[in-house]
Amino acid sequence: MCIVPVPHDDLALETAHAYASYQGQLVAAGLLVPMGVAGVYGRGAMFEDVITKFDELVSREGAKHQPERLRFPPLFSRAAYGKIDHIHNFPDLMGSVHTFVGGDREHRGMLEKFDRGEDWSRDLEASEVMMTPAICYPLYPTLAGRTLPQGGKRVDLQGYAFRHEPSDDPARMQIFRMHEFVRLGTPAEALAHRDEWLERGQAIFESVGLPVERVVANDPFFGRGGRVQKVIQREQNLKYEFVVPICSEEKPTAIGSCNYHLDHFGTAFGISTAGGEVAHSACVGFGLERIALALFKRHGLDVAEWPRDVRDVLGIG
Amino acid sequence: MCIVPVPHDDLALETAHAYASYQGQLVAAGLLVPMGVAGVYGRGAMFEDVITKFDELVSREGAKHQPERLRFPPLFSRAAYGKIDHIHNFPDLMGSVHTFVGGDREHRGMLEKFDRGEDWSRDLEASEVMMTPAICYPLYPTLAGRTLPQGGKRVDLQGYAFRHEPSDDPARMQIFRMHEFVRLGTPAEALAHRDEWLERGQAIFESVGLPVERVVANDPFFGRGGRVQKVIQREQNLKYEFVVPICSEEKPTAIGSCNYHLDHFGTAFGISTAGGEVAHSACVGFGLERIALALFKRHGLDVAEWPRDVRDVLGIG
Repeated sequence: MCIVPVPHDDLALETAHAYASYQGQLVAAGLLVPMGVAGVYGRGAMFEDVITKFDELVSREGAKHQPERLRFPPLFSRAAYGKIDHIHNFPDLMGSVHTFVGGDREHRGMLEKFDRGEDWSRDLEASEVMMTPAICYPLYPTLAGRTLPQGGKRVDLQGYAFRHEPSDDPARMQIFRMHEFVRLGTPAEALAHRDEWLERGQAIFESVGLPVERVVANDPFFGRGGRVQKVIQREQNLKYEFVVPICSEEKPTAIGSCNYHLDHFGTAFGISTAGGEVAHSACVGFGLERIALALFKRHGLDVAEWPRDVRDVLGIG
Repeated sequence: MCIVPVPHDDLALETAHAYASYQGQLVAAGLLVPMGVAGVYGRGAMFEDVITKFDELVSREGAKHQPERLRFPPLFSRAAYGKIDHIHNFPDLMGSVHTFVGGDREHRGMLEKFDRGEDWSRDLEASEVMMTPAICYPLYPTLAGRTLPQGGKRVDLQGYAFRHEPSDDPARMQIFRMHEFVRLGTPAEALAHRDEWLERGQAIFESVGLPVERVVANDPFFGRGGRVQKVIQREQNLKYEFVVPICSEEKPTAIGSCNYHLDHFGTAFGISTAGGEVAHSACVGFGLERIALALFKRHGLDVAEWPRDVRDVLGIG
C-alpha cells in the first residue's frame, strides 16, 4: 500500500522515523487501514470504539449546559465558504467538490482522456459544495440574519473536517472528526465559554491520562500575508491548543483547541445578540482521531491492557 | 434559506408538492436543518438519535456472522476510483475533490477572480481523493492482491456516500450514510449473502413498521450507453431494492438494497478465493437517512408518540 512520504522542511530524520514506526504499529494492530493516500485511513473496530467512548465522555461533560445538539455532513455550501476568509488564509488546505455536468458528447471526450491516462478533472465543473474545513463553519450560515436569545446560544457539534495536508505523520490526517461546543453571544459570554473549556478540557485530558500542555495556537496561515496573520494570532491570544507528545517530544501534537473568534462569524453572517449587538463566538474542539492516537501511544495498542482508572473514565469494560 | 427546486422530467405537480410539504414539516420540527444547497442538510438531535438506534439494530442483526467491523471516511483514493467504472456509468453523480497547490502569485490571481465574483475553481488542481459514491467501494482496494480465507470474508461498514443529484425530495440527499454488510468469497457464498439479507432485511423493516416491497433495482446509469446497462441490470436480477412510500405512493423510495456484484470488484482489484478463483462479492445496504425519513413519515414527527412495539425494537425508552 503506497503511503507517500511527504517532505517537511523542519522534519528531523528522527521524527520521520518516529512517524513511520508508529504508523506501522497502528496498521499491524489493525487500528488503522491504509487507503493508498497519505493521511487517509480506514479505522478498525477498536480504534473506532475508543473514539466513540471519548466522544461520549465529552458529550456528558458538555451536556451540563444543555446545548442544542446538531450534526452537519462533511460538506457545506460554496456560497457560505466564500464568506469566511478561508480562501484567503488557508487555500492550500481547501477541498472543493467538482462534478460532471455535460452530456453524452462531453462524456465521451472525458472518457478518452481517462483512457489515455490524461488529466480528465478539467472536464468537471465546481459543484455547490465545499469540504468542511472546521466542524463549526456550517453552523453559522444556518443562523444568518438571526437574533440570538438572551444568554446567547450553545451548540454541540460532531463531524468530519477536511484539510489537504498529506503527511506521513499518522496524527496529521486529511479527513478527521472533531467534537465541538460552540457559544454565540456577547463578547463576555463567548470569552467565558472559551476560558471555561480551557479548564474543563485540561481536566478531561488528565482524567484519561494525557498530560496536555496549553499553548498559544500557531495556525498555518498561507504565504507571505500569512506570516503577518500568524503574528497577529499570537499577539491577540485568541486561540489556545492542548498539546501532547504523540510521536515526538520536541514536536507535540495539538489534540484540542479553545478559540475565541471575536465577531468574525457574527459579522460574516449578520448574527445579533439579544441586545442588538453583533454576536461574538467561541468554540472548543476535541480532535477525536488525534486523541485516540495519543491514548494508544500512551497506554498501549491493546485497550484491554490500559490502566483501570482510564478505562473506568471512558466506560470501557 | 434557499432550497433550489430541481426539475424532474417525470415529476407530477402533486409529487413536487408532497416533497415540499414533508420537507417543510421536517424543518419546522427541527429534524432537518437547511444548509442553502438542495439535498444537503444538518440534522437535529431526534433525527440523529433515530439513525443511531436503527444503526444499532442492524449491527446486532449483522453481528450473528461476526463480520470484521471497519469504518472508512467519506473519501477514497482517485486511483481506486479509476478502477470501478463509476466514471463510465455515473459521471454526473461523482464528487472530485480539488485543492489549491500554487504559490503566492497564483494565490493573488485566484483571489482577484474571487473578488470579482468570477469562477476561481479553475485555479485548483485535482487532489488524490474522490468522494465515496458507495460505502463499500473503499473496502475492495484495501484487499487488492489478497487471497481470502476459506469461507470468504464478511465486513460490517458504515459511513457517508456522496451523489451529486440536487433535489427537493428530502429523501434524495447529496450526502448521506449507509450501513452495509459485505461478503466476498465464491459465487455461491456471495449469492447466499445477498439472498439471506433479502429475507433478513425485509424482517428488520417490518419489525419497525415499514411495509417494504422488494423490487428489481433500476439504477440511473448515465446517457445513451446507460440505457443498455439498465436493461442488462434488470435482466440479470443482480440487485434488489426495498422500497416504501415516503412522500408518494406512486413513486416509493428505495431505503435499502441487496446487490450481487459478480466478480466486478474481485477482478478490478485482483482478489482471490481460498480456492484460487476470482472472488465474487455481494452487499446489503441500509440507507440510514431515508429509513429515518420513512419512520418519521409513517409514525409521526415526534418519537415519543411512536407505537410502543416500534420503540421497543429500536430500544427507544
